[in-house]
Amino acid sequence: MLENNRTKTKDPIYLDNASSSPIDIDVINEMLPFLTGNYGNPSSLHDLGRKSTIAVSNARFRISKLIGSKYNEIYFTSGGTESNNLALIGCARMLNKINPSCKRILISKIEHDSIIETVNFIEKDLKFEIDYLPIKKDGLIDLDTFSEMVSPKTSLISIMLANNEIGTIQPIKALVEIAKAKNENTIFHSDAVQALGKIPINVNDLKIDMMTISSHKINGPKGIGALFIKQGLHIKPIIFGGGQELNLRSGTENVCAIVGFGKACEIWKEKLESVQTEIKRLQRYMIDRIVNEVPGSALNGSMENRISNNVNFSFAGINGEDLLIKLDEYGIEASTGSACSSNKKQKASHVLKALGLSYDQVRGSIRFSIGHQNTQEELKNAIDTLKNLIKEFRKINGVVLRE
Amino acid sequence: MLENNRTKTKDPIYLDNASSSPIDIDVINEMLPFLTGNYGNPSSLHDLGRKSTIAVSNARFRISKLIGSKYNEIYFTSGGTESNNLALIGCARMLNKINPSCKRILISKIEHDSIIETVNFIEKDLKFEIDYLPIKKDGLIDLDTFSEMVSPKTSLISIMLANNEIGTIQPIKALVEIAKAKNENTIFHSDAVQALGKIPINVNDLKIDMMTISSHKINGPKGIGALFIKQGLHIKPIIFGGGQELNLRSGTENVCAIVGFGKACEIWKEKLESVQTEIKRLQRYMIDRIVNEVPGSALNGSMENRISNNVNFSFAGINGEDLLIKLDEYGIEASTGSACSSNKKQKASHVLKALGLSYDQVRGSIRFSIGHQNTQEELKNAIDTLKNLIKEFRKINGVVLRE
Repeated sequence: MLENNRTKTKDPIYLDNASSSPIDIDVINEMLPFLTGNYGNPSSLHDLGRKSTIAVSNARFRISKLIGSKYNEIYFTSGGTESNNLALIGCARMLNKINPSCKRILISKIEHDSIIETVNFIEKDLKFEIDYLPIKKDGLIDLDTFSEMVSPKTSLISIMLANNEIGTIQPIKALVEIAKAKNENTIFHSDAVQALGKIPINVNDLKIDMMTISSHKINGPKGIGALFIKQGLHIKPIIFGGGQELNLRSGTENVCAIVGFGKACEIWKEKLESVQTEIKRLQRYMIDRIVNEVPGSALNGSMENRISNNVNFSFAGINGEDLLIKLDEYGIEASTGSACSSNKKQKASHVLKALGLSYDQVRGSIRFSIGHQNTQEELKNAIDTLKNLIKEFRKINGVVLRE
Repeated sequence: MLENNRTKTKDPIYLDNASSSPIDIDVINEMLPFLTGNYGNPSSLHDLGRKSTIAVSNARFRISKLIGSKYNEIYFTSGGTESNNLALIGCARMLNKINPSCKRILISKIEHDSIIETVNFIEKDLKFEIDYLPIKKDGLIDLDTFSEMVSPKTSLISIMLANNEIGTIQPIKALVEIAKAKNENTIFHSDAVQALGKIPINVNDLKIDMMTISSHKINGPKGIGALFIKQGLHIKPIIFGGGQELNLRSGTENVCAIVGFGKACEIWKEKLESVQTEIKRLQRYMIDRIVNEVPGSALNGSMENRISNNVNFSFAGINGEDLLIKLDEYGIEASTGSACSSNKKQKASHVLKALGLSYDQVRGSIRFSIGHQNTQEELKNAIDTLKNLIKEFRKINGVVLRE
């Protein structure tokens, strides 16, 4: 019915890599022995148990190499969400014991739900005060505003390294310097789930205390993540039991997934620069074509300080969710903002609202996130389809763009 | 050096299935498409996302069939430890809001560390009182003692269905009846990690409110578990974020592992009776031979109320850990008590201590846990080796048994 140069197909163009990404074949091949044979519990003292222990250690080492940490600063969790929860709740519970007079947490307004909902809990149950840092129109944090908002009572700060919806890269190093200059005991956490594998990360260079990373955003398996915790910082656990992960995260280690996460990190350590250069070229191609060929389109977020895989546009007179569903019919898989938000019906993106976008601009937004498996041919087809669909939607709905 | 009819081998006899179990090939085959192709995030609205959503729903349905619950009473977590934490902390936080005058939790003395450490946290941080129920010499709970210990203020009870170290099956149905007769609002949780797939379980028949289950103890993958929560009971989350699992457990669903867990449950639903009959025969063979052929051996736990896979003995004059390491050299993989405890050096089994065993008896204990892959030939070899090793150890250490 709709004019289109792409027919409905069984071979989708997957442009939702920031939600979850295909697992690399080399990652799968390293995981397979731990599905089929090496099923030992790392806590067991026998040979199969030791094989699992060694595999977990090896993965810890590989992951540490990608972020420049020591291997014993990596603590495994079930994913980015749990890592963010552990970082914030674990730190708040520690602060409650050692420094109950400083109970103030600063986060940005564009953090992931797993930060925002967690500080809501900490505010209510652990009686902390929460400060929410605004962002500029391009999604970046203003250093002066940040400096003003860090109080001597701010004991914990959590600012994401790259945003999941608009891809904006924050100046974490500068923010840490400002915060530590005001209070050297302030603990700085960064959610780097979307930044890992996209930009070079070195925790020592950034001088952060904790950092969250996740496997399934970097072509590793789901269900596994990690929290970097600087040596000497002793946050409290949030899950209790057998004392795994140096008593910080109890529960039998997810050995197979840990092995996959380790391999994914090793692969990105090797190829980050070359692959991201290519993905950035594809991103540029997509953004340029949409800007030039789709009237009434506006790129959300910063063009300069942006991870290579993120393309987020608002289209005037368009309902992003309708567009998404239609794109899906044509085999093009994208997202409106964060995938996680789809669990919360009717919830408009808090990230786009924080940019100062109008309701219509928020509603008219769509995110494409490019993976290393995507080709320019795929992007070309996706853009052609997108152009036609937007034209058709506007025609059907009688939308007339002002010049 | 030691006399032995079994040589060191690369093909171990794995008798530690209660720590972790080999994944069934049918389980792996169902998981593979979710490693190689179906990588969508269930929260995504597109086709790949929906495929993941459907897979998760299907698994939820299969799991519910094994425990007789509704499919929407199953909440996925990262494993048994997290499920136990969610059940107890989530319930305590709920009780703090709705009934702050009843803050008493009753658990048995032989619960898993993920229950014991969690109530320690709840006692300290959420200001509950904890009562510890003793057990009889055979590991069973005495109904009268239980009845005496349930106070009108007891708002939460957690008693495991089968013990991980000694395999004792508790009379949960009778315990629930006693507890609910005293206070119908008392919430009853059971850790059924070791019971699932071993004995038939029906949550409606047991009349429990919450139950913990785990995948990797029933030939499914690690890193996935679930909590059954009776419809209408609204405990609080312990991990916050995108609102997955009806807002009770945020974090991208571990789709591949969930699929495997579902398949493992389906398999056990089909074959539980026939396979457990065979495992029980092997258990009987092993226990009878050890009792008859190894002097100074004492079976720990009840013979009658015992899951089919568990064989736990104390051997007079033997250090269980030395025996374990020597068995491992001969390719026989067993455990001293709980695998998880190996993270806590020097910690003697609290389960065996609760049975009233002496220090030497606790120290001289070893657990064999049989899996459906084990053969009588394997058990024969293991028992022969065990006999010889015990004889040698006693000879070396000059142990003389009294008749």
